[in-house]
Amino acid sequence: MSLLKKRYFKWTLVAILLQAISLTTNAQDQALERVEPPFWFTGMHNTQLQLLVYGKNISQATVKLNHEGIRVKKVQQVENPNYLFIDLEVSSQAESGKFPLEFEWEGGTTLHYTYELKEKNKTVNAQAGLDGGDVIYLVTPDRFANGNPGNDAIARLKEQPNREFHGGRHGGDLQGVKDKIAYMKDLGVTTVWLNPVLENDMKEYSYHGYSTTDYYKVDARYGSNEEYVAFSKQLHDQGMKLVMDIIFNHCGLDHWWMKDLPMKDWINQWPEYTGTNHAIASLSDPYASDTDKKQMVKGWFVPSMPDLNHENDLLANYLIQMSLWWIEYANLDGIRMDTYPYNQKDMMAKWVQRILQEYPDFYIVGETWVDNVANEAYWAGKQTRDKTVFNSYLPGISDFPVCFATRKAFGKDGDLKALYDVLSKDFLYSQPENNKIFLDNHDMDRFFSEIGGDPEKFKLAMTFLLTTRGVPQLFYGTEILMKGKGDHGVIREDFPGGWPDDTRDAFTRKGRNEPENEIFEYVRKLLRWRQQEEAVHHGKLKHFVPYDNVYVYARYTGQKTVMVLINNNEENKTLEMSRFKEVWDGHTSAWEVLEEKHISDLTQIRIPANRAMILELAKKGNETGSRK
Amino acid sequence: MSLLKKRYFKWTLVAILLQAISLTTNAQDQALERVEPPFWFTGMHNTQLQLLVYGKNISQATVKLNHEGIRVKKVQQVENPNYLFIDLEVSSQAESGKFPLEFEWEGGTTLHYTYELKEKNKTVNAQAGLDGGDVIYLVTPDRFANGNPGNDAIARLKEQPNREFHGGRHGGDLQGVKDKIAYMKDLGVTTVWLNPVLENDMKEYSYHGYSTTDYYKVDARYGSNEEYVAFSKQLHDQGMKLVMDIIFNHCGLDHWWMKDLPMKDWINQWPEYTGTNHAIASLSDPYASDTDKKQMVKGWFVPSMPDLNHENDLLANYLIQMSLWWIEYANLDGIRMDTYPYNQKDMMAKWVQRILQEYPDFYIVGETWVDNVANEAYWAGKQTRDKTVFNSYLPGISDFPVCFATRKAFGKDGDLKALYDVLSKDFLYSQPENNKIFLDNHDMDRFFSEIGGDPEKFKLAMTFLLTTRGVPQLFYGTEILMKGKGDHGVIREDFPGGWPDDTRDAFTRKGRNEPENEIFEYVRKLLRWRQQEEAVHHGKLKHFVPYDNVYVYARYTGQKTVMVLINNNEENKTLEMSRFKEVWDGHTSAWEVLEEKHISDLTQIRIPANRAMILELAKKGNETGSRK
Repeated sequence: MSLLKKRYFKWTLVAILLQAISLTTNAQDQALERVEPPFWFTGMHNTQLQLLVYGKNISQATVKLNHEGIRVKKVQQVENPNYLFIDLEVSSQAESGKFPLEFEWEGGTTLHYTYELKEKNKTVNAQAGLDGGDVIYLVTPDRFANGNPGNDAIARLKEQPNREFHGGRHGGDLQGVKDKIAYMKDLGVTTVWLNPVLENDMKEYSYHGYSTTDYYKVDARYGSNEEYVAFSKQLHDQGMKLVMDIIFNHCGLDHWWMKDLPMKDWINQWPEYTGTNHAIASLSDPYASDTDKKQMVKGWFVPSMPDLNHENDLLANYLIQMSLWWIEYANLDGIRMDTYPYNQKDMMAKWVQRILQEYPDFYIVGETWVDNVANEAYWAGKQTRDKTVFNSYLPGISDFPVCFATRKAFGKDGDLKALYDVLSKDFLYSQPENNKIFLDNHDMDRFFSEIGGDPEKFKLAMTFLLTTRGVPQLFYGTEILMKGKGDHGVIREDFPGGWPDDTRDAFTRKGRNEPENEIFEYVRKLLRWRQQEEAVHHGKLKHFVPYDNVYVYARYTGQKTVMVLINNNEENKTLEMSRFKEVWDGHTSAWEVLEEKHISDLTQIRIPANRAMILELAKKGNETGSRK
Repeated sequence: MSLLKKRYFKWTLVAILLQAISLTTNAQDQALERVEPPFWFTGMHNTQLQLLVYGKNISQATVKLNHEGIRVKKVQQVENPNYLFIDLEVSSQAESGKFPLEFEWEGGTTLHYTYELKEKNKTVNAQAGLDGGDVIYLVTPDRFANGNPGNDAIARLKEQPNREFHGGRHGGDLQGVKDKIAYMKDLGVTTVWLNPVLENDMKEYSYHGYSTTDYYKVDARYGSNEEYVAFSKQLHDQGMKLVMDIIFNHCGLDHWWMKDLPMKDWINQWPEYTGTNHAIASLSDPYASDTDKKQMVKGWFVPSMPDLNHENDLLANYLIQMSLWWIEYANLDGIRMDTYPYNQKDMMAKWVQRILQEYPDFYIVGETWVDNVANEAYWAGKQTRDKTVFNSYLPGISDFPVCFATRKAFGKDGDLKALYDVLSKDFLYSQPENNKIFLDNHDMDRFFSEIGGDPEKFKLAMTFLLTTRGVPQLFYGTEILMKGKGDHGVIREDFPGGWPDDTRDAFTRKGRNEPENEIFEYVRKLLRWRQQEEAVHHGKLKHFVPYDNVYVYARYTGQKTVMVLINNNEENKTLEMSRFKEVWDGHTSAWEVLEEKHISDLTQIRIPANRAMILELAKKGNETGSRK
């Protein structure tokens, strides 16, 4: 406390000295354009708040504020005189409310910003996080549903709508997603992950949302900040959850600060354009060269996305606060962090710790696109197994190895051994049950296309995804067999029926054709059954080495055992169940969930070609034949 | 101590009672056939010794011995009356020498065995182990050289020589290997690993040595125990080392005890023949079923190899003592343990600890045949990184993932990225420098055949093998481009010139053709250079992500840096060396080892198609142009 006071006095002194230097300032050269975060919250565990203030010659102004429980600790000037970084202490005594933040220049010019401290949400489990009981539905907001055609074209923004172009803006928006909450709830997913919704005011190819141009503003073509918060509330009212997609690694080239950077090293600059080498492995490699590691982290993702320099503490703090702001403001349940390993890993570990300090159960999933468990597990954290290696503290990773295994298992000449192989390496994770599992996502060929368009194999894969360990994620349209390969714009096709002038509405049974309805009903049945099935949410997993392309496993708690049998062959199989007795011992019958039938003999089970069975086991005297 | 005494009295009492039971014994039904270990050593750290005694009705005899510092602690009878297990305490005061071990039956029959305590070898570094300074030469003794045609046919043994048959006994022997010590030393290897030399008295297909029928006797077709010990001494006299190949998992079906097992559970018995499922992954799999793990470990390797039950403490102790006996008796430097994961892993961890307690620097390498680093590293131990998972304590593993990576890298359309990928996962090992690395072995298609018979690619692979981290191992004949695919008998072909009647002698320059000599000289040059190169033995490794199929890395100590450049392309490449500056910074020139030439400009280096370069870097004023 006394140390903080000392620092305060020291910086007050510095501020006075800096004022003396600014005597030459010209009155008309003064402005106040941005204060970020634009507001903050009372009752945060961490009492520090650092404001970025942007305005012409702002660095030469004196800062004043007068509000109970909040005080200026330090004012930092940087290379660019148009920036000022103000460290505030927001004590636990601070009261919510508005107050002026005053900037006064020598010569008398005074500008002010009305700052606000809002009250922190005190709802129990406001940010409860995600777990195995959840299923995430990933939506590309531009491509799902156009609920408000009125916001398709925003004159002040560079890119205008063009639904004819795969890489263009199609007009989907928050109102569209909001309109489909009932659809998603009926389908049986619990959580919505939207691809980034923050402003991407780029000339072209900005519909995907990964070129942020304003970290504090929802893109007007999707809606407003207020609409985003309202959407979150509507989801929560329906018992559903929201995951925000955030990018720390880079911003868009047209981000507002790119025209007038706070300092040279705000972004990673190179003598000439240098892309990342994508050498994720170098970051965990004991033999990696500094050159490779530097290029991996500091090389740019693409020329239109400047690489942010996380070693700059002001930038790092900016990003961390921004994410906390959105969690609190929009009452988020989780964050999906883009291109996780491309960020500076130690900074990212601090970021995770900072969030968990504030929201202990919050779910964060890093996009960790690697092809093997050894490298994947390196990024998985929270309590990483091996304390001698890096700990990311990350609650969850995106389980690409499992994704690739499903493609191998259910693709042409696939063998379910691939599923066993990948899961058997889970000893490298401390919390594999937190891994986000998926068959595809917005960056990958759609699973149905990838495996050659066989709906039976697709059903098998879906059964696996929704019954194995982890937090499953579906990409929008998966439930209606949407196809797409190669071009990302094609993979992220419009959901039929999401636009007022669409010729059919695949959100309805009537608007779907027969194959689509068959899959829709299969996925819906699985999802809705899963919602009630504790053994799948939190149960242990036990599986058997697949022989002859048949995979058998169980999810079980002390109360209940669910067995899953997957026959990946073109012919029927009769399973002698004695090999699996250790998981069904003590049970005498079962309810088969998919065909909805009673099974009275567990010693031998016939499983048709390309078919999965889900058995809820029952003990003698407690048969489940009448379960439904 | 008092506890030990109590036990002693208790067991003396039991022995007396047992004598009372044995009154009915018939004099002619008494015999003494085996005492194992046949002798032991004074000065061992662990003072316990358990003798297996085999003889008709031996269980009904009283045991007596009288020798300074040695006493009977416990006598154990088992199911079969023809066995007795005697626990001895060999104190640190025990003197070396011979003494009678007497067995007396009720009725007066007395038989005795002259037991001996030999003095433990006290030579400093007697068992110094292996490290990165070593190169292992793997020899299949039946197929290398027939130094003594007189022992090809041993009448009392079942299989007779047949050099015409790939799966037959060809007559190679210890005398043959001994005769080639000079050849091996000249080649530049430091260590000999012989495929198992213990007796394999099987009807057929026993030349490989993996069906032990007597754990204490060298197969007479190879020589005698004394010849083996003498061979070890000769190697050591030449500054070379010896690795013994031992199998704990199984014995041969015709092992002497198979006709009269000590007890039912001495081996793993099944209601009907059950082979292992080879599911190595199940042993580290957090979700594995007990059924799968049991079949992996207790299933038989093949019908002719009974699976030994390591959960039987008497059997476990027998194997552990046997290995200690050979280490001490033959002054071994290392053990290669066959089919490591197929053994009972907790017993194996105890075994390793027991050996390291006695010989702290001893090298043990487990045959851990898996295709990925995650699973491989699970078996690597000594100080395993993650204390929450199993610790094998194993000093070394056989690095199959690196082996497979070399095949991918240098095979058709190979990319050196495979080498980077595999090594970058070394963070999972605590001591990757101890990994035994190899291009092939006696169980794999020979590397030269595997990569399509291209001698230039072969040279590149050899350069990698002998300069990267680990303890390299070559399979005999690799240096003369021996081929072989598929049938093991073909892979393990006779070394030309090893037999008196061979038409040519490839052990000599004159007997080799030009391509063979070219490879021989290349390998020899590399090996002999490597012997002197500390930076390769113990230096750190730093490597760069391979671009364009060129792999660049350095081995370095505080004193010296060696750079390796491998161009895996069909065309010449000119490398801008600035990317690699962090490893050559401070140096101005280099000596290129393979072409033996001085390189005066390190900023740009031209590397011919399919060529490797090894650069010993030199600082200004300390040029290496005159090194040779």
